[in-house]
Amino acid sequence: MSNSIGSLFKLTTFGESHGLAIGGIIDGCPAGLKLDVDAIQLELDRRKPGQSKIVTQRKEPDQVEFLSGIFEGRTTGTSIGFQIKNTNQKSKDYSDIKETFRPSHADYTYTKKFGLRDYRGGGRSSARETANWIVAGAIAKQLLKNISINAYTSSVGNIYLEKPYQELDFSKTELNMVRCPDTDMADKMIKHIEKIKKQGDTIGGTITCVIKNVPVGLGEPIFDKLHARLGQAMLSLNAVKGFEYGSGFCGTEMKGSEHNDIFNTDGTTKTNLSGGIQGGISNGMDIYFRVAFKPVATLLQKYETIDSTGKTVKLQGKGRHDPCVVPRAVPIIEALAAMVLADFYLLDKTRRL
Amino acid sequence: MSNSIGSLFKLTTFGESHGLAIGGIIDGCPAGLKLDVDAIQLELDRRKPGQSKIVTQRKEPDQVEFLSGIFEGRTTGTSIGFQIKNTNQKSKDYSDIKETFRPSHADYTYTKKFGLRDYRGGGRSSARETANWIVAGAIAKQLLKNISINAYTSSVGNIYLEKPYQELDFSKTELNMVRCPDTDMADKMIKHIEKIKKQGDTIGGTITCVIKNVPVGLGEPIFDKLHARLGQAMLSLNAVKGFEYGSGFCGTEMKGSEHNDIFNTDGTTKTNLSGGIQGGISNGMDIYFRVAFKPVATLLQKYETIDSTGKTVKLQGKGRHDPCVVPRAVPIIEALAAMVLADFYLLDKTRRL
Amino acid sequence: MSNSIGSLFKLTTFGESHGLAIGGIIDGCPAGLKLDVDAIQLELDRRKPGQSKIVTQRKEPDQVEFLSGIFEGRTTGTSIGFQIKNTNQKSKDYSDIKETFRPSHADYTYTKKFGLRDYRGGGRSSARETANWIVAGAIAKQLLKNISINAYTSSVGNIYLEKPYQELDFSKTELNMVRCPDTDMADKMIKHIEKIKKQGDTIGGTITCVIKNVPVGLGEPIFDKLHARLGQAMLSLNAVKGFEYGSGFCGTEMKGSEHNDIFNTDGTTKTNLSGGIQGGISNGMDIYFRVAFKPVATLLQKYETIDSTGKTVKLQGKGRHDPCVVPRAVPIIEALAAMVLADFYLLDKTRRL
Amino acid sequence: MSNSIGSLFKLTTFGESHGLAIGGIIDGCPAGLKLDVDAIQLELDRRKPGQSKIVTQRKEPDQVEFLSGIFEGRTTGTSIGFQIKNTNQKSKDYSDIKETFRPSHADYTYTKKFGLRDYRGGGRSSARETANWIVAGAIAKQLLKNISINAYTSSVGNIYLEKPYQELDFSKTELNMVRCPDTDMADKMIKHIEKIKKQGDTIGGTITCVIKNVPVGLGEPIFDKLHARLGQAMLSLNAVKGFEYGSGFCGTEMKGSEHNDIFNTDGTTKTNLSGGIQGGISNGMDIYFRVAFKPVATLLQKYETIDSTGKTVKLQGKGRHDPCVVPRAVPIIEALAAMVLADFYLLDKTRRL
Repeated sequence: MSNSIGSLFKLTTFGESHGLAIGGIIDGCPAGLKLDVDAIQLELDRRKPGQSKIVTQRKEPDQVEFLSGIFEGRTTGTSIGFQIKNTNQKSKDYSDIKETFRPSHADYTYTKKFGLRDYRGGGRSSARETANWIVAGAIAKQLLKNISINAYTSSVGNIYLEKPYQELDFSKTELNMVRCPDTDMADKMIKHIEKIKKQGDTIGGTITCVIKNVPVGLGEPIFDKLHARLGQAMLSLNAVKGFEYGSGFCGTEMKGSEHNDIFNTDGTTKTNLSGGIQGGISNGMDIYFRVAFKPVATLLQKYETIDSTGKTVKLQGKGRHDPCVVPRAVPIIEALAAMVLADFYLLDKTRRL
Repeated sequence: MSNSIGSLFKLTTFGESHGLAIGGIIDGCPAGLKLDVDAIQLELDRRKPGQSKIVTQRKEPDQVEFLSGIFEGRTTGTSIGFQIKNTNQKSKDYSDIKETFRPSHADYTYTKKFGLRDYRGGGRSSARETANWIVAGAIAKQLLKNISINAYTSSVGNIYLEKPYQELDFSKTELNMVRCPDTDMADKMIKHIEKIKKQGDTIGGTITCVIKNVPVGLGEPIFDKLHARLGQAMLSLNAVKGFEYGSGFCGTEMKGSEHNDIFNTDGTTKTNLSGGIQGGISNGMDIYFRVAFKPVATLLQKYETIDSTGKTVKLQGKGRHDPCVVPRAVPIIEALAAMVLADFYLLDKTRRL
Repeated sequence: MSNSIGSLFKLTTFGESHGLAIGGIIDGCPAGLKLDVDAIQLELDRRKPGQSKIVTQRKEPDQVEFLSGIFEGRTTGTSIGFQIKNTNQKSKDYSDIKETFRPSHADYTYTKKFGLRDYRGGGRSSARETANWIVAGAIAKQLLKNISINAYTSSVGNIYLEKPYQELDFSKTELNMVRCPDTDMADKMIKHIEKIKKQGDTIGGTITCVIKNVPVGLGEPIFDKLHARLGQAMLSLNAVKGFEYGSGFCGTEMKGSEHNDIFNTDGTTKTNLSGGIQGGISNGMDIYFRVAFKPVATLLQKYETIDSTGKTVKLQGKGRHDPCVVPRAVPIIEALAAMVLADFYLLDKTRRL
Repeated sequence: MSNSIGSLFKLTTFGESHGLAIGGIIDGCPAGLKLDVDAIQLELDRRKPGQSKIVTQRKEPDQVEFLSGIFEGRTTGTSIGFQIKNTNQKSKDYSDIKETFRPSHADYTYTKKFGLRDYRGGGRSSARETANWIVAGAIAKQLLKNISINAYTSSVGNIYLEKPYQELDFSKTELNMVRCPDTDMADKMIKHIEKIKKQGDTIGGTITCVIKNVPVGLGEPIFDKLHARLGQAMLSLNAVKGFEYGSGFCGTEMKGSEHNDIFNTDGTTKTNLSGGIQGGISNGMDIYFRVAFKPVATLLQKYETIDSTGKTVKLQGKGRHDPCVVPRAVPIIEALAAMVLADFYLLDKTRRL
């Protein structure tokens, strides 16, 4: 259902931004995995708010607590329960949004669907949920230790990093606030976000993710194609409006004779417009895909909207919000990719005699 | 697993292009639905090969036979089994591709994953499978009788139908071979495909799909967001390289103040950059999305590739292949969308007291 | 959902007793399994009606046709579709049962649940469905080639085979009509069934199943305990009213000091009241369980019941029915056990690093 | 997978007996349900250890904390996370069982399956897990407010409550330690347990459960038969060795003419040997079933077993263990039944137009 992802490596989550805690259960992680808990916390720190001046200034430690499934540092094969306490819920006055539907948020649809909603901080629709994904993704990364997964900011608004990923040094991604491995472009992006932020506005962008050393054979025919599950995972992330892999939308303009990836004699291909996946199954080449993010809906401006009775009301956006979600989404994209790959990695163990 | 889609309205399929039959089982279709079997066959006819000079010239009747789950014209609530016989498998000589991996096909990945493959006509990776989806989608459409789902060809190569969908007359989509509701653009697209075809080459394109009259509330928080399941479904279709909904990749260049959809007092919105979905749940506005197709990999040209021993071999593409899959994919996109919506429509019945 | 069993080795089925065919799809069977199709047909022949004078005299060939997933004699890793045509549906007059609810059948509950039912021959509630299970179970048996699964009739009415299974020679099970490996007891059971049959009545019984050579480690903690899945599978079979494994209901009268299975130094146990499963996981000892069957509800007698308007009507049972389902259920119990084990066998491949 | 039960009303759990906490996530509970949290805690109190002299003397408060999914006293339709802290883990010395496999426990199978185990207090195989089930079951009971679910102890060892359930007053079940609604039989059972306890031994027993006011139509054809899912749930509970419903194993000795439940004109039946379920679907009559429990494996005696190297070792059972699990299992059986019914109740909302 709705709150689970994966079939063999499976995460189920709970939590509202202003409840006592968020958390999850990882079911199906193989026994015997030695966990590096610091590495998990490091991934959480990459996502947490308040890291830099171009993201929300909320301060939340986002400390993960493991409650089960780990013994003497190793996974036991039983379900791994964890929680992240909500320590920074301001007991602020929500009376302004309680009966109000903010535009391009989930307020209206949740209320109509469920008949009520936890309006504090967006409730279940808050991106705070993604901290849970980071935890599971970090464990998946450790399970897939030979596979490298690197995401980075490839555009902010109309500022695009045009370089192909092969020319980038991913070790530089974490060196700047916007998580773009090209320093010059990173500066431009940061300046752009700062300008937008001053306007009380927000801006969209894209993230590219590159996965290397994937063994041949992950993914399944028909409805569990590797890219289809990657796409579903990415589209589950707040603010995502699109997904493309390999040649993507650009590939639609190409001819077959230009697009086909000709084989080398070792089974690798001379080009990789396929994006490392053929027929839904990894072919051993790099997997790469791009994810589109809309601009954040919460503006620090005055605007009109409606309340639950259909009356027009004025709202003043305030508080601590991201002017651009893209920098903080980079580790989330990696976490989602890791979970999907871990699931297929396990499934593939059952597919041949 | 791999061969199923949906959780409550669930299709499971089987079939290779050159076996005795393909088919499927629909589990979870509510009882009491009066089925219009002619309408189902009509959808199959829209997909079938040999309809026009710009698609493959294979002739297959694609006649569906229902084997269970229907009694006196109505669904009984039990599983609906169906099959479509393969009547046109030429007993041709496959020795040329038996041990050969065609570039940008699934030959290599299937063989490496499973250790063997049914090489005749692509086996399970053949798009023939999608005839099964048409059957289930056509039933889903009948279940969702108040919802209209219209897909159309929105680009072929670099020829784009720029008009917004609101200016199109969907009743014209079926009037031309390329399934573009704008007659002038359709002509250009058809000419382009004919030109490409003469070169023995192929070309990509995009399909746009518009869904109207979706009730508010379909879709679920977190991992079953309506657009995430739509994306997964579309990315399951052969040759698809990307998916975007609402503002999509263009939305990444926008500011929040431009992108937010301001409410009217009745809960509709003045703009619809959200694409009819907020927080993963339908908001009653039109849902629209776009799907990217790469050019078909099979060319009617001579090309080099490798065989299973890694030796370079020459292949001559021949036979009856689509120069552009987009026209025949239009009804498939609709069928996938219908299945996803039917699933969420049923699920939504359980979400409130 | 309702028409599927298993998570990795998964069977989904369709079919009414009087439709064109019944059939199913097996998803998840590993690639490379060389199938012995004759062995599959042999299992179907064990279940088919008309084998002897103590079972229904209907004649149905129950010939399985494989439609996909097998290539040159081996499984390909793709879904295996199959069907069994219904060749013996008499175009008889059903007007007597069309609007009538037979006692202790599913007529009433199907009609109330779904609003309509296919009344011909019991429709989906017919035990004809179990032929599908035989097919999947026979494939599962071939996948688990080192594991032996032997079921046999252990009681008919109040005639019990008291011998422990260790004293039985399973090679004799198929030598008599009632499928009891003890020839003397078999004779008594057969005579009893013949007597009951003459009365136009029916009788219940039990089946015991013994599984040898199960590797240690199959089954999962909590809700996928091996015996819980075996129990669910057995309780899915028509007419089954109970399931016990190991010491079963008798074990409730024992003290812990009598019931505990003391270890030998090689990890085997001196006794096996646990029935080969501890904590839901196989321990390498024999798994054995017992299944209870009620008497068949269809009698060749005159009886009163009600019609769909609540009016009392008289019915005369007639036709070709089993006086005791137990003999024909023996291969079905084995098939269900094989499917459950195959599923856990595959799952176990993913549970350790 | 292993740690989840249900498809629409779905519980996923985590927790070892000596970790920080146990807990779970309930996914799919409809929105708008007003929760009586005291009633949930009351159910937990029925299960908790230390209630009386015939159960374990451990003291654990078993206080549930809800972390999400509830707002202003009502369910919101999002996932409900909860935890129960482990407050009474004695930091005792486990060196004696660390490398030892206790007979008829899960020590051996967990270790062989996973390669390691959390040996403290049984780890994941501890019945402490069932406190999680109580929480979800108590919510399910509130969802099904018109349905009554009453379980009670129907035997301890060879002391059987022979009265049919119709002659019992369920309001008396909670009035004695052993949870048998017949006071005289309760006394006998209690005395028997006390005697067994003095011997440092343990004893098995059975629980009967009666469910009234179930609407017609819950349960599904084929593999989701209501009784099959009930059976699977019950067999998931520690120490359970068997399940029967309606006439159960006794029904195997009956003739069809005795066993058939003849209809009254209102669709009810004169007898109810079917146990309220026909063809896997509830028929509106009382559902009743019986569950068999083996004696607890942990004895307060000296006994021989083996360690992980296969060496024979002597163990002295000690500590605080139940001489008979049956009394504390009564509320657990009810909780499991409630979860299964809630799942089918929701599913049934989707089965007709």
